[in-house]
Amino acid sequence: MLTRMSSLFLRTLREDPADAEVPSHKLLVRAGYVRRVAPGVYSWLPLGLKVLRRVEDVVRQEMDAMGGQEIQFPALLPRDPYEATNRWTEYGPNLFRLQDRKGGDYLLGPTHEELFTLAVKGEYSSYKDYPVVLYQIQNKYRDEERPRAGILRGREFLMKDSYSFDLTDEGLAESYRKHRDAYVKIFDRLGLRYVIVAATSGAMGGSASEEFLAESETGEDTFVRGPGGYAANVEAVTTPAPPAVPLDGLPAAQVHHTPDTPTIESLVAFLNAAGERTFTAADTLKNVLVKTRQPGATEWELLGVGVPGDREVDMKRLEASLEPAEVALLDEADFARNGFLVKGYIGPGALAANGVRYLVDPRIVTGTAWVTGADKADHHVVDLVAGRDFTPDGMIEAAEVRAGDPSPDGTGVLEAARGIEIGHIFQLGRKYADAFALDALGPDSRPVRITMGSYGIGVSRLVAAIAEQSHDDSGLVWPRSVAPFDVHVVVAGKSAELLEGGEAVAAELQAQGLSVVLDDRKASPGVKFADAELIGVPTIVVVGRGLADGTLELKDRATGERTEIPREGVGAHVAGIVRGA
Amino acid sequence: MLTRMSSLFLRTLREDPADAEVPSHKLLVRAGYVRRVAPGVYSWLPLGLKVLRRVEDVVRQEMDAMGGQEIQFPALLPRDPYEATNRWTEYGPNLFRLQDRKGGDYLLGPTHEELFTLAVKGEYSSYKDYPVVLYQIQNKYRDEERPRAGILRGREFLMKDSYSFDLTDEGLAESYRKHRDAYVKIFDRLGLRYVIVAATSGAMGGSASEEFLAESETGEDTFVRGPGGYAANVEAVTTPAPPAVPLDGLPAAQVHHTPDTPTIESLVAFLNAAGERTFTAADTLKNVLVKTRQPGATEWELLGVGVPGDREVDMKRLEASLEPAEVALLDEADFARNGFLVKGYIGPGALAANGVRYLVDPRIVTGTAWVTGADKADHHVVDLVAGRDFTPDGMIEAAEVRAGDPSPDGTGVLEAARGIEIGHIFQLGRKYADAFALDALGPDSRPVRITMGSYGIGVSRLVAAIAEQSHDDSGLVWPRSVAPFDVHVVVAGKSAELLEGGEAVAAELQAQGLSVVLDDRKASPGVKFADAELIGVPTIVVVGRGLADGTLELKDRATGERTEIPREGVGAHVAGIVRGA
Repeated sequence: MLTRMSSLFLRTLREDPADAEVPSHKLLVRAGYVRRVAPGVYSWLPLGLKVLRRVEDVVRQEMDAMGGQEIQFPALLPRDPYEATNRWTEYGPNLFRLQDRKGGDYLLGPTHEELFTLAVKGEYSSYKDYPVVLYQIQNKYRDEERPRAGILRGREFLMKDSYSFDLTDEGLAESYRKHRDAYVKIFDRLGLRYVIVAATSGAMGGSASEEFLAESETGEDTFVRGPGGYAANVEAVTTPAPPAVPLDGLPAAQVHHTPDTPTIESLVAFLNAAGERTFTAADTLKNVLVKTRQPGATEWELLGVGVPGDREVDMKRLEASLEPAEVALLDEADFARNGFLVKGYIGPGALAANGVRYLVDPRIVTGTAWVTGADKADHHVVDLVAGRDFTPDGMIEAAEVRAGDPSPDGTGVLEAARGIEIGHIFQLGRKYADAFALDALGPDSRPVRITMGSYGIGVSRLVAAIAEQSHDDSGLVWPRSVAPFDVHVVVAGKSAELLEGGEAVAAELQAQGLSVVLDDRKASPGVKFADAELIGVPTIVVVGRGLADGTLELKDRATGERTEIPREGVGAHVAGIVRGA
Repeated sequence: MLTRMSSLFLRTLREDPADAEVPSHKLLVRAGYVRRVAPGVYSWLPLGLKVLRRVEDVVRQEMDAMGGQEIQFPALLPRDPYEATNRWTEYGPNLFRLQDRKGGDYLLGPTHEELFTLAVKGEYSSYKDYPVVLYQIQNKYRDEERPRAGILRGREFLMKDSYSFDLTDEGLAESYRKHRDAYVKIFDRLGLRYVIVAATSGAMGGSASEEFLAESETGEDTFVRGPGGYAANVEAVTTPAPPAVPLDGLPAAQVHHTPDTPTIESLVAFLNAAGERTFTAADTLKNVLVKTRQPGATEWELLGVGVPGDREVDMKRLEASLEPAEVALLDEADFARNGFLVKGYIGPGALAANGVRYLVDPRIVTGTAWVTGADKADHHVVDLVAGRDFTPDGMIEAAEVRAGDPSPDGTGVLEAARGIEIGHIFQLGRKYADAFALDALGPDSRPVRITMGSYGIGVSRLVAAIAEQSHDDSGLVWPRSVAPFDVHVVVAGKSAELLEGGEAVAAELQAQGLSVVLDDRKASPGVKFADAELIGVPTIVVVGRGLADGTLELKDRATGERTEIPREGVGAHVAGIVRGA
């Protein structure tokens, strides 16, 4: 297809949209790819839809190649299946709920685990039917509290979601591996720079859940990586525990009067002013009190979390460690009800004495000595030794992770980076199979409970993620695999000769099987060049003054390199460049 | 792609689904193409999705070829634009409405006139920008009161909707013609038998609105056609008026006592019993009283509708004639309020005397004499002559249309048939451009109000419409243009030799660029043949006992014809058949 700019439904903007903060949002709006309809809800104009479709095609091809079978569920879903898994309630305000004319409850699907599970249960019955991988590419709906960054976090967005159904854990591991390989192929083809990070701390098995993050300063996800290839979501980072210290010969714990030292800073200053020894915040043990509630429970339970005083408790890490329980900070009423909690001076002693569960950072191993609260206002205890003076109920990953921390794989120190979540693969296990009793009749006529994997790719988000990684000050710079066109032909002038020349060049390029956009508008060359840069087609051919001498200008959008090429044979020449010959 | 039945996510059913009444619904469910999730809400399984995509591709190709530009609006839409056109209210219970977490009102788009209009207004400003045709292929939502027939009338369904934007009425007529041509190409390529019917009676211009109906006994739309090519929706049929009769010498009207004759039947029987003349129901004039209300008005107004007594008033025709006014039957309170209306004996006299508007069927021309009510219980008037004894306020198309009625084009009589609406093209005019002030700046710097056309195709419905027209007792019979596969290879046996033979045949077909499904299951040949018939791939190749002698069986699904073909060269042979060589 030859697309002429003179009739293309496209108007570029000179100004950034007022509500845009990140480059992809600004540029996709300015270059006429998308338009906002409501918060987090966008229209795709012709250029945007072309890129979206190309991304979708890459995803589909690799999903088909790995053995996935495409189906399509409705977006409008009845409440019942989501009631069975309690997600009708659990989703809270993130779910778009509605009623039909008869008062029946419906929702707009945020994710389709229930439907996939029911579909397989509806069609399959024998162990011979398995394994199977099903997928769909479909609009999903989530009522985000803060939709942001254009199509990067929308409320209506296109997702590829797939599910694997296996008879055994080994089968699930294999389905997971196949998805991982397919995802690598997809993101490689899309020209993305990305990392694969562990998404959970491994409680469910080392590789049970991984995220694909496109590296981007504007990403919402923070991750860390070590020099040896280790990479993980901050929530998934495990803290290497130092070796235990022999208890023999350690000094005895002593309570000190430390007036007005409710903070770590004030405590360290007070101790160092005393002058006997030098303390740092890392020598102190900070005890943070929270309350937790198990799913389905009504009562909250107190929990003490001990971390070295030089680190904050990272609530996201704490929540990830305690999942599926809820976590909340204590309020004044909680403190009032529990008089043994002396704010600013809480120590392990009162917790143990009052039966409060106490979990500590992995660094707090047996034999380490700490300055911590003495459970009495204005008093701390020094040289309180773990394993001698107090015994925690267990370890917990809750302390903040910092650049410079040792990498868990022992290869050096971690560095922090930000990324955009573009894919997530997850060994879901039997949660949904249990909810709907999805069994296969085994060879021995006994039911075998199916185990599932869940795999997502944010297709519309990928368009933004690619734009985040691939742009410059002048505009978008698309990788060839997803560019709206292969070649952008600019007619640099208004004369009939140049216009005819441009048409002829475009026709030759098209004859090579290339998709071409021809800027045949009656606009100045400057406007046309600026639009070509903004739109970001990888190869630009300028039909200008040189035409009379039999030459054209070829511009590489990414490198900015300009070369003069002969008019003669332009089709084959440019086709060779586009196809990487 | 080679698809193996042994791993295809497909289980055919031996029984029709309990809720299915029409063949397409029964067969698409039995053959594993679709599955019901909620009333009017369906999932597409692999075979169904393949057919849907092929239909969608045909639609897209022809829309691109006619110059349409594809875009994509959200399905989740804010209330505001629909408030501006009053459709938020007008749609009534057919609209799925919902609120987001902040209480903002949203709807699921049933159609996107508002969004298209706003999109063009947002991008375009000059007369030089026009004309433009935009389209999308997208899930639409309508909360039908009675979803029926599977995907034939669903609540979530895939539509192609396009809009043309022109500066002039002539431009609109041209855009309309281009769409009409494209629709003809689309439905021809899909192998459909269809008629193009006038959708309105022509008040807005002869071809301002036409519907494409796929002929089908199970269709919801009734249409009529004449031998000379005339075809129209029943609502759009115009009644040829007979020539007026000279008034001179017609007998005078006489009031008769006709006790207990409130119905046409009892009246005719009474008159004929009197014996002087013979009357039929067609000699009587039936006056039906309704009330109408103009949009925005609060008051109802009485309306008398006069039709020949052998015909009923067709409420759908009456409503179409009175649009955009509402129509309702009178209730007892209305009769009580208007004492001059003598039920069963209403005549033109009382209507005229009381200022009630009175519209009559086109057959009631000047000089025709009628038996009708005398506005007095048990009394009728005979020989009441139109144009002499009463003068109607105008004509109205409200009487039922019957097979055997004269065709408006004078070529013979009408026959009635049923169809499925698969396309609708409509010269919308300036309604939405007015609502949103969509103007182009003209060459004289004055604003030009844009005129629009609206064009729809029910893409998912087409899958059902094709199935309705193309099936037999054994199952579906797909046209090649939309079949889920080009060839269905059946391995008729379980031996390793046959299975290997089947794989080799499938590979050869695939090498020819054909899409192939291979039935490699460990099932009996009978089961496999039945499934092949049910699934409906147009060409079936049976790898059976003949393989040892170098022969295969070729079966044409549509004709049932079986031929023996040599194994040697099967690829080229079958490719020739598939490609119509």
